[in-house]
Order: sequence, then C-alpha cells, then structure tokens
Amino acid sequence: MTHLEQLIKLLARLPGIGPKSASRLAYHLIKTDAAYNEQLAALIETIQQRVFPCSICGSYTEVDPCPICSDPTRDTTLICVVEQPQDVITISSSGAYNGLFHVLGGALSPLEGIGPDKLDFDRFIKRIEGGNFKEVIIATNPTEEGDTTAMYLKHLLKGKEIAITRLAAGLPIGGDLEYADRLTLARSLRGRVDFSS
Amino acid sequence: MTHLEQLIKLLARLPGIGPKSASRLAYHLIKTDAAYNEQLAALIETIQQRVFPCSICGSYTEVDPCPICSDPTRDTTLICVVEQPQDVITISSSGAYNGLFHVLGGALSPLEGIGPDKLDFDRFIKRIEGGNFKEVIIATNPTEEGDTTAMYLKHLLKGKEIAITRLAAGLPIGGDLEYADRLTLARSLRGRVDFSS
Repeated sequence: MTHLEQLIKLLARLPGIGPKSASRLAYHLIKTDAAYNEQLAALIETIQQRVFPCSICGSYTEVDPCPICSDPTRDTTLICVVEQPQDVITISSSGAYNGLFHVLGGALSPLEGIGPDKLDFDRFIKRIEGGNFKEVIIATNPTEEGDTTAMYLKHLLKGKEIAITRLAAGLPIGGDLEYADRLTLARSLRGRVDFSS
Repeated sequence: MTHLEQLIKLLARLPGIGPKSASRLAYHLIKTDAAYNEQLAALIETIQQRVFPCSICGSYTEVDPCPICSDPTRDTTLICVVEQPQDVITISSSGAYNGLFHVLGGALSPLEGIGPDKLDFDRFIKRIEGGNFKEVIIATNPTEEGDTTAMYLKHLLKGKEIAITRLAAGLPIGGDLEYADRLTLARSLRGRVDFSS
C-alpha cells in the first residue's frame, strides 16, 4: 500500500467520512499549503496530551479546573447534566445558560451493556451533596438512552431539596410541521405549554 | 485560543468539512486510539514529500515513472486525457480501461483566467508526437470548462493521424429519469445511440 492509500484508509475511519470524501481530503492535503499540514499534524499528534477531563465537571479542558468551573460570574446554584463533553460547548454557545455543568460521559443503554456501574453517578451525587445547588437541569439527549438516564438521575435525586428539570423536547425552531417525525410530534403534543397567560 | 479550538478551526478548512463536522472530528480525535492519531499525523506531515507528479503522465505517484506508465501490460496505443490526478484513480478503478493516461492539471476557464498558457499542452503534444498512439480519449469533466478544454485538445490534435474520442455523457446508470437534470437529459438526447443493431 502506498502512503497515499494509507492516508486515504486512515481518513476513511473518521466519523462521517466515507471512502470518496477520504480520497478528496487526501488529494487536498497533497496540494494544500505545507504549513497547514505541519500545524494540523502537530495538533493531531499532541491533542490527547493537551486535552483532559476537568476534575470537577468532566468536560474537556486544557487547564484544571476548566474555565467554566473556575468562572466566578457563573450561577453556582444551577447545574446542567449532559452526556458528552461536546454537549457543554453546544449548550454554552446557545448563550441561554450561565450555570455549571456535569458530564456523565455517556448514557445508560441496557442493550449495549452500559449500566449504572459504567457511568460515575457517585461522583455526580457527591458533587450535588457538597454544593449549593437549587436546580438540576437534565440535558441528556432526547433518545431512549437519554430518557432512561434522565429517569435514573431523577431516581438518584429523590428526597433531596433540589428542583429537577429536563430540556424541553418538541418541534425544532424554524422547522416545518409537515417534516416533523411522529415521535417529535407526539412529544410536543404531550409537552404542550400554556399559551393563554 | 485553546489547542482544541485551533484543531477545530484547522479541520474546518478542509473541503466539505463545516464547523459542526470539524468539532465532531476533533472530539473523535481526543477519544480515539492514540496510535491512530500518531499514524495519521505522521502521514499528513510527510505526504507532500512522498507524493509527486509522475514525470511522464503527471498523475500522483511515489515512484517515477508511476506504476501505470511503467506497466508493460498496458495498451500503449491508447491515451486518456484527464483534468486531475485523482481522475486517473477514478477511471482505473472502473476496470474498463487499460491504456495510458495524461493529466492536464486543470481545465481551461476563461472566467477564472485559466488560459492555454496555464496548462502544459506542449508537454502533451510532445508526448503524442513521440509515442505510438492510435486513439486519444478526452475524459475532461462534462462541464463548461471540461468541454472547452476538450474542444481545445481537438484543435491541437488536428491533422494528426490519431482517433479522438470523448467520454459519453448522459443518464447515470441506476438513476431515475425523473431526477435527471435538464442539461444531462438534453445531452443524452443529442448523443442518443443506435439501438436497432
């Protein structure tokens, strides 16, 4: 196998990159600015040493604690529980949230053998008990796994004096009713909100 | 900017990779097998030194002349002219061609200022004159630029005792007539083939 074929094969293992895109990327890398390749290669080679989970919230960071956990302007009575580190960025970038985060590192999935022992719920509960939180916002994905995890979190938090909320599920803004899937539509009906007041 | 942000920014400069895909790729690179990242980084860093244009046909190769130009089983009376090095792989992998190739390195595009002086037609003509070719297959893209280039090649080859052909344009195999665009349909009508014999 030539080096070009090796490069195409490795690129095709990236998520969302098929064999055609992989070869398009490889040919691009042959023709592009050499400094770009050097920078990209250096970052790919070192990214795993530079980025690690925050010791408090578990989101990816390059300093510990992460910039969010150490930000004094954040509302420390609000905590948002997410599945993955990238969800922290997604929610932060919405601009609609100024509390803290907690990353579970996944969702419960009995089918894939991911039970409560695989996700560190103890760390989460200890954090809740040691903190001054008034509300836990459960922001796991609106999927079967995310819903199962949300139920389990609710069960863990039972008896604690803390509000528990879940991100609203329903029609995406800007979407067309005609194209909404059945499950989303059913959920937006069950979760309909009062419009009179 | 953190290293993770830098990585996302660089990945988003790749063709066909938007900001969302870039961050998905970056998060994948954080979690994936470290050996994969090492191999990928090493290939990206060195690919431009390893891959260069074949001195005969101009396609990308890691040995000179390229494996196709030095293959004694190829039909050396047939030459297929393409725009880009990757077109050589695409046509080879169809399994329907066993001749030689010539890579122009682009197509004529008066609008983008790519005139005949920008592409090395002299090298092509010298190769034709020095060879034993019976047929030139013009396989430039079925676009305005590709068609312009095909016309120019035809003009250059005028008066030489050599057959000139062009790849057939028409409906893609497995496609549905309903989804064919007007231009493709018009071309497949103009280029209709005898079906009676």
